[in-house]
Amino acid sequence: MGAQAAYDAVVSIAERWSLTTAPPVQQQESPMIKVSVMYPYTAGARFDHAYYRETHMPMVKQRLGAACLYYTVDKGIAGGAPGSAPVYVAKCDFVCVSVEAFLAARDPHAQEIGRDIANYTDIQPVLQFSEVVVERSEV
Amino acid sequence: MGAQAAYDAVVSIAERWSLTTAPPVQQQESPMIKVSVMYPYTAGARFDHAYYRETHMPMVKQRLGAACLYYTVDKGIAGGAPGSAPVYVAKCDFVCVSVEAFLAARDPHAQEIGRDIANYTDIQPVLQFSEVVVERSEV
Repeated sequence: MGAQAAYDAVVSIAERWSLTTAPPVQQQESPMIKVSVMYPYTAGARFDHAYYRETHMPMVKQRLGAACLYYTVDKGIAGGAPGSAPVYVAKCDFVCVSVEAFLAARDPHAQEIGRDIANYTDIQPVLQFSEVVVERSEV
Repeated sequence: MGAQAAYDAVVSIAERWSLTTAPPVQQQESPMIKVSVMYPYTAGARFDHAYYRETHMPMVKQRLGAACLYYTVDKGIAGGAPGSAPVYVAKCDFVCVSVEAFLAARDPHAQEIGRDIANYTDIQPVLQFSEVVVERSEV
C-alpha cells in the first residue's frame, strides 16, 4: 500500500469515527513564521509593560485574526554579561501562518497599531521575520 | 464568602470529583524566564542551520536537564523594511525555571557548549535574559 493509499485509509477510518483528519503540523508544506517585535533597551526611556500586555497585544492579536496563531511576550531582565542591561526592554513574537497572511491582516490596521505604540513607549521597535524551525522542543 | 473560602470550596468539590486542583499558571510566584541566544546577521558569515537544529540545540537541552523546560529555534528571513536583511540570521529561546537554575545547569558545560558553536558558525551570539510575561496567548 502506497503512502497516499495508507493516508486515505486512515482518513476514511477517522471520518467514520468522527476523528479529526488534520495531518500533524510537521507535515505542513509551509512552515509557520514568527514576527518578532523588539524594543531596544534605552536608558531613561519609557515602557509601560502592563499596558503592553493587557491592552496593546490583545488588540493587535484581534486585528490579525486567523493570520496569527498566538503570541508570546517577554520583559528584558539582563544581558549576557553579569550586571549588564538587556538588549531589549521588551519583545514579542507573533506566530503566524505566513508572512503574506500577516501582512494582509496587519496592513489595514497598521496606522491604528502604530498610533497605539505611543501609549506605552517612546522606543522605536525593531522587526524581524523568521521561519519557525522548532516551535517547541520535546521536554 | 471570602476569596479563600470560595477557593477552598472549589478545591473540595474538585477533590471529590477527582479533578485537578493545581492553581492556574498565572498564580505561580516565580515566573518562568527565557534565555535568548541571537546571532546577528553578518554578510558572508557562516551558519549551518541543520547542525544547529539537529546537533547543537538538543545537546544543550540535554546538558541543561530539568532547568530547561523547552526551547524554540528560528531562522531569520527578513527585517521589517521590505527587502532588508534580518537582524538575526538565527535565534533560539530556552524557556527555563529561573535564571539561577539555568546558570547552575549551564556553567559546568559552558566550555563544551562554547566550543561547539564553531561547528556551525563564526558569528558571536548575543544573549538576553527575560521574564516570560505571556508564555503563549490564548487562540
